[in-house]
Amino acid sequence: MKLRISVKNLKEIADLLNTIVSEAKLTLKKDGVTIKAVDPAHVAMVSLEIPSGSFEVYDLDAEEDISLDIERLKSILKLASSGDVISITKEKDRLKFEMGTIVKTLSLLDNNTITTPRVPQVSSESYVVVAKYELEKGLKAAEDVSDSIRLTLTANDFRARSLSDTEESEMILSKELLKEIRCEESVKSSYPLDYLLKLVKSLSSTDSLKLSFKDDYPLTIEFEFGQPAKGSSDGYIKGIFLLAPRMEQ
Amino acid sequence: MKLRISVKNLKEIADLLNTIVSEAKLTLKKDGVTIKAVDPAHVAMVSLEIPSGSFEVYDLDAEEDISLDIERLKSILKLASSGDVISITKEKDRLKFEMGTIVKTLSLLDNNTITTPRVPQVSSESYVVVAKYELEKGLKAAEDVSDSIRLTLTANDFRARSLSDTEESEMILSKELLKEIRCEESVKSSYPLDYLLKLVKSLSSTDSLKLSFKDDYPLTIEFEFGQPAKGSSDGYIKGIFLLAPRMEQ
Amino acid sequence: MKLRISVKNLKEIADLLNTIVSEAKLTLKKDGVTIKAVDPAHVAMVSLEIPSGSFEVYDLDAEEDISLDIERLKSILKLASSGDVISITKEKDRLKFEMGTIVKTLSLLDNNTITTPRVPQVSSESYVVVAKYELEKGLKAAEDVSDSIRLTLTANDFRARSLSDTEESEMILSKELLKEIRCEESVKSSYPLDYLLKLVKSLSSTDSLKLSFKDDYPLTIEFEFGQPAKGSSDGYIKGIFLLAPRMEQ
Repeated sequence: MKLRISVKNLKEIADLLNTIVSEAKLTLKKDGVTIKAVDPAHVAMVSLEIPSGSFEVYDLDAEEDISLDIERLKSILKLASSGDVISITKEKDRLKFEMGTIVKTLSLLDNNTITTPRVPQVSSESYVVVAKYELEKGLKAAEDVSDSIRLTLTANDFRARSLSDTEESEMILSKELLKEIRCEESVKSSYPLDYLLKLVKSLSSTDSLKLSFKDDYPLTIEFEFGQPAKGSSDGYIKGIFLLAPRMEQ
Repeated sequence: MKLRISVKNLKEIADLLNTIVSEAKLTLKKDGVTIKAVDPAHVAMVSLEIPSGSFEVYDLDAEEDISLDIERLKSILKLASSGDVISITKEKDRLKFEMGTIVKTLSLLDNNTITTPRVPQVSSESYVVVAKYELEKGLKAAEDVSDSIRLTLTANDFRARSLSDTEESEMILSKELLKEIRCEESVKSSYPLDYLLKLVKSLSSTDSLKLSFKDDYPLTIEFEFGQPAKGSSDGYIKGIFLLAPRMEQ
Repeated sequence: MKLRISVKNLKEIADLLNTIVSEAKLTLKKDGVTIKAVDPAHVAMVSLEIPSGSFEVYDLDAEEDISLDIERLKSILKLASSGDVISITKEKDRLKFEMGTIVKTLSLLDNNTITTPRVPQVSSESYVVVAKYELEKGLKAAEDVSDSIRLTLTANDFRARSLSDTEESEMILSKELLKEIRCEESVKSSYPLDYLLKLVKSLSSTDSLKLSFKDDYPLTIEFEFGQPAKGSSDGYIKGIFLLAPRMEQ
């Protein structure tokens, strides 16, 4: 097995996974890598499809699962410059990372100790496509008001609102400020704010997010991130983030 | 009531007040806003005159007092960019802040719970006008020597000196380095250093400060800050800071 | 006595000494200053030769020793800008530092309370001259793996390797990446990592380091740093750092 990937792509994958888990199982297949992870409280789930085009080199000996400590991986990536490309090879139960003059070797984890969740089928006909920086502003405004945020979608706008005894925060994105909106009947649901904030902060290369939900129902966030390797056109990473609703008091 | 003011002006007002209080009462009058505040230990006092020209829009329904949590206000202002203008309206006992797509609403405090000090009449014939960055250097040099600083004014120079068992710090500003000096007989007095440091650090747009004092007497610091709103020439904010002297051992 | 020296030079001297001691004795001689210091655990030693050419002004009344609190000196230097030049005079048992409008005075320490080590004679025929930034990368990569690092020198390369139960870090610098190498028979020895990291981080103006060692033997690091004063060509500061080997388990 020999892989080469930009530090930027690998860092964004690690940062995203680390918003909900500290260890993860990667499934290496012919056409790319898939990762499914669930947080210990079973509130949030991430599902990633990393096409082989995200890698400069993608040579497998066989399809296999490898499990990694994500925080150790992040600490290795800190040693590289953001413009670097990193080489990854497997030696027995270890993964070897080469960056210029530095070689780091990390023990793999036992695949059986990492839970791979079954991603539930959720679907909603109402959705909105929103600029990441707009959503991030709305989430940050709510940050010191409450630990919960209520999303509301109508035919005309998308709102995110948090409330405390003495303070209120509301983001209002009218139709014209949205990239896409589809909503026949208005829907609303509340979600834990910290998961959303961490997700949005981890996605450094994403421009827009598609949010689908209905009344008191899991939220689905779809997004793309990363950069195709040189010469590849089909190397964007596809991510789905699922978040359980919060019951309102 | 509808007010519009630059984030820069409002942030500097909040930072200045927050050096001595966490809550403040604003008196809204036809020609502008006045604020008087005293710190809980009754060591320092601030008095501000914010002319209507500091505001882009200054529309009052009636003259009135409104009381605010200054730390909550600062945290709201952190959400805005420094070039932004913020709209403020009052709805019952709440103040509504609008910045682009974000609306924050803050409960007003009960005016009766906020002490408004009577600013005492202090006067001294000796004063010095000093560049803020020069004074700031002198205060910082004293910071890890003592919690008290002694100011001395003679006909020829202005000095600030702190002393510990093993270390001494002195700022010496000779006549030529001062913007203005008036002193017939030399005067000296000591003051708590932390209040002065916080004040000077909070005044981001101020160039110079006028300090008046005499032997073992309160220090008066007069300054201007902020920027007039577009089209207004008369929008600088006037501030007075009073600080009780410290008895020397 | 009157000395004038750039803040940059004095700061780098203080930072270097502070990696192993908090107090130091300076020996002022006609042609410059020498400093010898040993850390409290007697694991590392620094020996410095600061020629008079490192100083803008170097006027002595007599050759003498002066002892200083290095951390207080660093805190004084923080008040100056990096382009400043600082004047130092002695008044009885105090040292006076002048930087523009600020004068700081520091009590000298009793010379008898500061141990001056005798620097042992160590010598090795194997050495390598390496770019500081390359060594720094290798040390940082090892930082969260172990508190010990093993250096290996062969005729063809220089390596630094650290090991834990689950992780390994190795820097490999082949001949072409080295400024100089001399090694007939390969040598290896382990050293405490934190001393090396602190040293390398403190040397802001050094380009390259000469490392000499042999099997399980003290490491000698030789380097130059600082800038000659204007008009002087012979003002680089010469440093030697000695580090005891660590027994490998």
